[in-house]
Amino acid sequence: MTRASVVGAGMTAFGVHESTLSELFATAALDAYDDAGVGPADIDAFYFGNAMGGQTENDTHLAPKLATEVGIAGVPAQRFEDACATSASAFKNAVQAVDAGIHDTVLVGGVERCTPETGNGTGEMTRIFASASHRQYEQPTGLTFPGVFALMTKRHMHVYGTTEEQLAHVAVKNHRNGTYNPRAHFGREATVEEVLDSPIVADPFRLMDCCPFSDGAAAVIVTSDDLADSYDAPVDVTGVGQATDLVPLGLKSTLYATQAARDASAKAYEQAGITANDVDFAEVHDCFTGAEVLASEAIGFFEDGEGGPAAAAGRSALDGDRPINPSGGLKAKGHPIGATGTAQIVELTEQLRGDVGERQIDDATCGLAHNLGGDAGTTVISVMEVRG
Amino acid sequence: MTRASVVGAGMTAFGVHESTLSELFATAALDAYDDAGVGPADIDAFYFGNAMGGQTENDTHLAPKLATEVGIAGVPAQRFEDACATSASAFKNAVQAVDAGIHDTVLVGGVERCTPETGNGTGEMTRIFASASHRQYEQPTGLTFPGVFALMTKRHMHVYGTTEEQLAHVAVKNHRNGTYNPRAHFGREATVEEVLDSPIVADPFRLMDCCPFSDGAAAVIVTSDDLADSYDAPVDVTGVGQATDLVPLGLKSTLYATQAARDASAKAYEQAGITANDVDFAEVHDCFTGAEVLASEAIGFFEDGEGGPAAAAGRSALDGDRPINPSGGLKAKGHPIGATGTAQIVELTEQLRGDVGERQIDDATCGLAHNLGGDAGTTVISVMEVRG
Repeated sequence: MTRASVVGAGMTAFGVHESTLSELFATAALDAYDDAGVGPADIDAFYFGNAMGGQTENDTHLAPKLATEVGIAGVPAQRFEDACATSASAFKNAVQAVDAGIHDTVLVGGVERCTPETGNGTGEMTRIFASASHRQYEQPTGLTFPGVFALMTKRHMHVYGTTEEQLAHVAVKNHRNGTYNPRAHFGREATVEEVLDSPIVADPFRLMDCCPFSDGAAAVIVTSDDLADSYDAPVDVTGVGQATDLVPLGLKSTLYATQAARDASAKAYEQAGITANDVDFAEVHDCFTGAEVLASEAIGFFEDGEGGPAAAAGRSALDGDRPINPSGGLKAKGHPIGATGTAQIVELTEQLRGDVGERQIDDATCGLAHNLGGDAGTTVISVMEVRG
Repeated sequence: MTRASVVGAGMTAFGVHESTLSELFATAALDAYDDAGVGPADIDAFYFGNAMGGQTENDTHLAPKLATEVGIAGVPAQRFEDACATSASAFKNAVQAVDAGIHDTVLVGGVERCTPETGNGTGEMTRIFASASHRQYEQPTGLTFPGVFALMTKRHMHVYGTTEEQLAHVAVKNHRNGTYNPRAHFGREATVEEVLDSPIVADPFRLMDCCPFSDGAAAVIVTSDDLADSYDAPVDVTGVGQATDLVPLGLKSTLYATQAARDASAKAYEQAGITANDVDFAEVHDCFTGAEVLASEAIGFFEDGEGGPAAAAGRSALDGDRPINPSGGLKAKGHPIGATGTAQIVELTEQLRGDVGERQIDDATCGLAHNLGGDAGTTVISVMEVRG
């Protein structure tokens, strides 16, 4: 059942930008306006995500500031922060509000500047990112996010025999997909050997298992099912599930099962009235190659333990039976934290319109976005379908 | 019309605390559970506010972490940040969700640690607070929040002849009210002479015109109109309006009129089917004495220009015709940023139950909370009434 529709989508290229948060966000939002054929007067609320502006550049209370920049000061505006799931959380709340009739047509989006080039070095950015881990139980140990996902992935390797080479295939696939995406941070191919020869960051992850720090913004216009028919190219949101898991990592029932993703996808599938078998492709949160393997199982694309072999066998490639991250994912498209969740929705929208050229999934009618925050303590799953 | 009901309320004392964010928030939340007679199994979502944890102590992604602490990991959880209006924004979103049937019974709350004693000195805290002003147009000028509200208040003085002595009366009243509130940061009386003799912070504000940095937490349990009757002491939320104004300050149509408060209160009154004349008392955002004067006019308690004389004449005192900030307000109760909005809802709940002892407003049946963020670019107005 249609809960809401996306009728406009826009984003900046992801990568290194000299622009301010305002400039980046306005670029994405005005693209989304143009794509939908709307103007500020059509928007009646603003659901906005930014994760780290306070820490990276002493910039908070961004919702009314950015509302001003894109012409919608006056409407209710709120900022969400749920670590890397920040703008998927904004999207979920927006879909709920539109579905419930609280608002008619809303602007949803996110922005982040987190390349070392934009002011904070790699070490400082790593420290800032680590704020999303447990302040008392994890941060004092020196655990940063490559380590968090390394622990989760190591457990998966122990239980299921997942290999470093299988993980490398995830990176290679996403790099290849990224070459077809003009907005991707990385636009070049990689090889399994190159991944396996890159330096260790946090065992089992090597440098090429890790997504980059990126700057960028993404925005979508969400409207109600009733209003969607008056737009040129609506794509329906049929399910949005969100769940939390225990934090910190040490409390989780299993390290590799990402329970919140299982709970959230169950909710989203139920709302949409579908199962994982009905989904033609997924954008998942591959902050590290291992995270994609875990996610591919949690959303039901593969049986537990089959995520690694499936990646190595090409099943998640563009021409596989279970395509994952056609955009290039966080690994190649890039990961501007607060923009990532909305950027997944942009990819779903454009794929389901058949508008993405060489990376198009043939005959795609249903896509899924999986966006997690922190150690997967927050996960949001969105299901979108071609309008019936 | 009832949109939702508050059926449980809890908060810590506001002041200087040695406790972590988790400990503070859990104290407030468990008090709210006890007050409502609920347990974690009764809660189906978590709307949480914290403004500055990332900046003050590198602590973000707090929603699932605190959900874990209070036994509700699993439910959808999200963090809001809208500067000083942070947890009123969470409350607004929660009321909307319950009113729309998205959730049945939710935990709403906020927490902050921002006393210089908890790690960052006064200068550093002032710099962190300034992150809520415009990064490009205001921060480079050296403008901090005492200055922001000083500019707004100076304009009010210029247009209406409001005096420093009238402002001092606001501080004296709120200090007196605070002596009746065992959870207030300041529990002592002040005199007009003492306020006027205190050192200048930002003309026209002296030290005693300014609220303190405080640590603390507040939480409420919000349930639906239908479910409220099964609780002992529900208090109804009949209106919640939120609006944004242009940011930065220099773009605002008037500096003293706080347009967002006017827009938000108009919405809240319309939802509740009342006017300002029906409201028995208000908790307003008196981060500085001048802010209370501006708010008292924006919510319609006094005509424009009459806020200062009304404060001096005692009209906003506990026994006046228009009581404002019976809790002591931000000035005396304290201002732990992300907890302030919810703490106002706690005061409204307890006042409307007749439970606040010496600071009780006689025969109060309707109260209003006014919580602003930044330069008032975000304002949330909540109206609560004794259950009919």
